[in-house]
Amino acid sequence: MNKLLIVGTVAFDEIETPFGKTNKVLGGAGTYIGLSASHFNIKSAIVSVVGDDFPQEYLDLLKSKNIETCGIEVVEGGKTFFWSGRYHNDLNSRDTLDTQLNVLADFNPVVPEDFKDSDVVMLGNLHPNIQISVLDQLTAKPKLVVLDTMNFWMNCALDELKTLLKRIDVITINDEEARQLSGEYSLVKAAEVIQAMGPKYVVIKKGEHGALLFSGNDVFYAPALPLKEVFDPTGAGDTFAGGFTGYLTQTHNVSFNNMKNAIIFGSNLASFCVEKFGTERMEELTRGEVQTRLQEFKMLTQFNIELTK
Amino acid sequence: MNKLLIVGTVAFDEIETPFGKTNKVLGGAGTYIGLSASHFNIKSAIVSVVGDDFPQEYLDLLKSKNIETCGIEVVEGGKTFFWSGRYHNDLNSRDTLDTQLNVLADFNPVVPEDFKDSDVVMLGNLHPNIQISVLDQLTAKPKLVVLDTMNFWMNCALDELKTLLKRIDVITINDEEARQLSGEYSLVKAAEVIQAMGPKYVVIKKGEHGALLFSGNDVFYAPALPLKEVFDPTGAGDTFAGGFTGYLTQTHNVSFNNMKNAIIFGSNLASFCVEKFGTERMEELTRGEVQTRLQEFKMLTQFNIELTK
Repeated sequence: MNKLLIVGTVAFDEIETPFGKTNKVLGGAGTYIGLSASHFNIKSAIVSVVGDDFPQEYLDLLKSKNIETCGIEVVEGGKTFFWSGRYHNDLNSRDTLDTQLNVLADFNPVVPEDFKDSDVVMLGNLHPNIQISVLDQLTAKPKLVVLDTMNFWMNCALDELKTLLKRIDVITINDEEARQLSGEYSLVKAAEVIQAMGPKYVVIKKGEHGALLFSGNDVFYAPALPLKEVFDPTGAGDTFAGGFTGYLTQTHNVSFNNMKNAIIFGSNLASFCVEKFGTERMEELTRGEVQTRLQEFKMLTQFNIELTK
Repeated sequence: MNKLLIVGTVAFDEIETPFGKTNKVLGGAGTYIGLSASHFNIKSAIVSVVGDDFPQEYLDLLKSKNIETCGIEVVEGGKTFFWSGRYHNDLNSRDTLDTQLNVLADFNPVVPEDFKDSDVVMLGNLHPNIQISVLDQLTAKPKLVVLDTMNFWMNCALDELKTLLKRIDVITINDEEARQLSGEYSLVKAAEVIQAMGPKYVVIKKGEHGALLFSGNDVFYAPALPLKEVFDPTGAGDTFAGGFTGYLTQTHNVSFNNMKNAIIFGSNLASFCVEKFGTERMEELTRGEVQTRLQEFKMLTQFNIELTK
């Protein structure tokens, strides 16, 4: 089976939305990416760090989804990264209430031996130097390296981020971040500028408005599935990234046409993530449900126009 | 040929965007709808009113596009409706600088005899009572009645609007208006509530994020074409409506699947409208350009996933 290497946080989240409030629950980019990618026939591993306050049952949950966890370092006497946030009524914006880096402050990622020749590498949102360190440990050039990042690193580690951009194939960022990184308002122009910085493919995530894939003159647009209820957007972007890279790892085909499919799978999985709080929906999600929703995505977007004279 | 009856303003606009400023130019919902619908093999007529300050060359332009103008009343000594607005930097919002109703204040629409049995009726944004008056003059039940309206009428003529909603088949409104009319934030729920008010089909326009079509449990999503430059959004919604109704008039098929195609044609034509100021791009647009862009829409949205086991 093809291998997907994931680096990203494994953490505690405390989430408040207009629909309710959680206690400390399982969260983190690495967790969401891993759960999402577990829907494909691949081998995957998460590289991350937690404290010894992290429950064994959460690690067991990841293992039960066939995710290799030996790359998740457990720091004795350390505390796990904690984030808490409150979403506004439109669910499109949120306030961070608390961030406790804890063991993440001194995180030195160690790639498991068996994953140093991974086919696809998914660099979840972290300091660019941590992401670079993961790439430095690889013994074979991956088929594809995908980077997720955010405005925070553009503000405080732009040089490191620009160095990293030269070493990756795909970047996934949201629309506002694409505008910030490129200095261009038009997303078409922004994608051009960002491609010139390194990545051949630029994926721009627009939340409830879907996602765009740009490469050269090619553009693809995947809508988000219109949902009756969005319960909690936490992890949707990471779930998208997990579906995107999971599908590309399984199919081992990085043509633009296959990337379209990967975008659809990412959108598909993300549409489930937001239906319940935290990772709850992703933990119980079956492959049958994913296949059924794929049909909904086809209904939603496919048309058949006969050209008129 | 099948007949499309259009009611809507024919007016003067003065537009300011971050890219420049026009003098008084040709504008109005009826104008944009008519120019857009002229790309189909149909007979169309505009019902509207102008003053005697309205240049003959503008009427000649409409005639040259095979649009019947005998339903556009010219009021001797009257002044044509005038609107002026300034768009903000993101082009998604605008301030109205001036509105002079002029002859529109006493507009009594008169449907030309030959169009009282039209196949499709497009009620452009106007007071609901004017739109109702047009329906009252018809001698045969149309295949389809499409309504465009806006928040202004929800605020000041909601009862009349609700009466009208019971007599139409399709409503096109933007996302904020759908939320206001329904009292629901989720667009899926909003579309359900609005369907219960009358129209079997609800089209929600999301500007640069595309358009959604809802009917019962069916949903279709058409993206807006990502453009390098959006020059002037004026008339984009009306151009969308003109493409939507023009296509449905020509094909005379109001199945959900054919409505999907109509949405794509509407989005296609609207993507040209915003490329230049006012009606400029629509005046010069050729059918060849429309067909080429249709291919771009296919590239943008169509994918081919083989289901995995």
